[in-house]
Amino acid sequence: MNVHIVGTGLLGTSLGLGLSRHGYRVTLEDLSPTSAQLAADMGAGEVARPEDPDVVVIATPPDVVAQVIVDALRTWPNATITDVASVKTAILDAVKQHTRDRELDRYIGSHPMAGREKSGAIAARADLFMARPWVVCSDEDTPQERLEQVVTIAQAVGASVMHLDPLFHDSAVARVSHAPQVVASIMAAQLVDMPSEGVALAGQGLRDTTRIADSDPGLWTQILAGNAAEVATVLRDIRGDLDRVIDALDMRPGSLRTIAGSLAAGNDGRARIPGKHGLAPATYETVTVYVDDAPGTLSRLFTDIGDLGVNIEDIRIDHATGVKLGSVELSVVPAHVQVLIQGLRENGWRLPEQALDPKEEK
Amino acid sequence: MNVHIVGTGLLGTSLGLGLSRHGYRVTLEDLSPTSAQLAADMGAGEVARPEDPDVVVIATPPDVVAQVIVDALRTWPNATITDVASVKTAILDAVKQHTRDRELDRYIGSHPMAGREKSGAIAARADLFMARPWVVCSDEDTPQERLEQVVTIAQAVGASVMHLDPLFHDSAVARVSHAPQVVASIMAAQLVDMPSEGVALAGQGLRDTTRIADSDPGLWTQILAGNAAEVATVLRDIRGDLDRVIDALDMRPGSLRTIAGSLAAGNDGRARIPGKHGLAPATYETVTVYVDDAPGTLSRLFTDIGDLGVNIEDIRIDHATGVKLGSVELSVVPAHVQVLIQGLRENGWRLPEQALDPKEEK
Repeated sequence: MNVHIVGTGLLGTSLGLGLSRHGYRVTLEDLSPTSAQLAADMGAGEVARPEDPDVVVIATPPDVVAQVIVDALRTWPNATITDVASVKTAILDAVKQHTRDRELDRYIGSHPMAGREKSGAIAARADLFMARPWVVCSDEDTPQERLEQVVTIAQAVGASVMHLDPLFHDSAVARVSHAPQVVASIMAAQLVDMPSEGVALAGQGLRDTTRIADSDPGLWTQILAGNAAEVATVLRDIRGDLDRVIDALDMRPGSLRTIAGSLAAGNDGRARIPGKHGLAPATYETVTVYVDDAPGTLSRLFTDIGDLGVNIEDIRIDHATGVKLGSVELSVVPAHVQVLIQGLRENGWRLPEQALDPKEEK
Repeated sequence: MNVHIVGTGLLGTSLGLGLSRHGYRVTLEDLSPTSAQLAADMGAGEVARPEDPDVVVIATPPDVVAQVIVDALRTWPNATITDVASVKTAILDAVKQHTRDRELDRYIGSHPMAGREKSGAIAARADLFMARPWVVCSDEDTPQERLEQVVTIAQAVGASVMHLDPLFHDSAVARVSHAPQVVASIMAAQLVDMPSEGVALAGQGLRDTTRIADSDPGLWTQILAGNAAEVATVLRDIRGDLDRVIDALDMRPGSLRTIAGSLAAGNDGRARIPGKHGLAPATYETVTVYVDDAPGTLSRLFTDIGDLGVNIEDIRIDHATGVKLGSVELSVVPAHVQVLIQGLRENGWRLPEQALDPKEEK
């Protein structure tokens, strides 16, 4: 299969790298000849405009994707055209306005849920899509063989394909990704004018809730603008809940119930997020170890854990303020808790001196 | 120094365990005789009401702290009284209303910034306060020797003491802790009624931003109620920013600038959060490794890292949906990047096949 990639940024170049390594013949183009040549030098494919490619992948910035799709449908009358933008409805609508029905059958929108905080060809990775969801939007008119071409490409680079309706996709990503980005950015912005002594009280909770506020404003402005209505719907829901809590903080009769209800609803929402690998959330137990900041400490810790034969499911490092000591939380299956605790203590590691919590042994 | 602890929940019992291990004579009381005895059985001290303790620590639920402080000031006319509640102004005001000036000099509010998602004596740890900030609120009337008693206790259990004004404290924790808790809970609550296929698109960003929504609604309702005015101020600031973004999502002229400005302010706020150990954020480079979910994989990885002599500053595990493969991001000082990449490759680990990013080598 010959694949032509238009746009050699992070996603386009990563896709080129991945497909080239799996034997696909990949051609590349970009408005910036430098960027296209860089991608080619990295091994993402050959800079060329092919006569008759099987599939064309549009990986330009989101705000020009629709126009580039329309152009591609005309330029290559036999090719299947797909794109990798993170919004789907607005693009489909724009493409519909400028194409005839038969042409439209050759366009299949898709969205690999992958990215990095860095951008550009230079940040590309052949394995960027490995183990990530890749949403494909088809309908009853989509020719089966064209749909299979797009699915094959996604699977070739290791992604996990999900078939979704464009409206459903846009509404879902607004809720699980776009609105959380806005809220995290707004929450982080509240720190800008704080005295340093106040910011010094920040704990791991604030670090976690604002981590994605590090994202690129330019790219995210395009994403939010492209899914504006759906994002606004979720943000209005959030504002409604926020208004109720703000009102309740006047502490009138009934206030406590409103506040507690909001917090309990948060518990319920969290319980819906799938665990590792999309399975139902698994119950792991955590074992805490205190570590100092000396070179090699974490490496020694994990060497010892390796010797114990215990599989670590997840790791969290807690950063403390003002002291050169931290703690590491290790998630393990319940059956391994005792082996791990005893083994680490025997190796001289400092663990909390708590009595064993019966709930932690169930 | 004789220390009497009123309230043997997570904080009181943890403090008793820590102080007892450092040779303090600790007595305990709790409204629940079972809870007090459990704490004593765990080694937190002796269940007793002493005649003349040096320091009394009030560690009851936040909504009764003020009354218990007032009672304690009367019961023990020579003792220094402190508390560990996470709000300080409302408690100080309530205590002031019910005590004379001279009595008030014996009360010094404090707030160890430590906790767990679990609660009760059974979840206590002698090292809970290790390397955590412990805020102490004194004023010009506070007798120096009493202040030193509270500071000594905090330092005995390994905490890092910060002297702050109660109003400043409450305003700061509202911004870095209480309001983020409300916002994270509200954000997680938006998932309650979502179809499962939509929640399946959740990535690490959503997991991070909503992690603290797992917290206990009962305890947090008391905390928010006790700092209601300050929390409402921050939530109103957040609502103002949210309103601006919602309006901008109508996509009128000027909208893009508003949206981009919000995201950029988020970048600025994040940059203010101190790094590891309260230092200025350090620049580490990240090295990504792909790992499968087989038992022992992470342990083998860290054994290999240990053999390379590379110090790992931080670790992030990325969970993928639907595929039994994940990636681990290792933060290391720039000087160790090459050693780590080369050493891991030689040991057969799969790393992204990207060209080296010149920015990552600076």
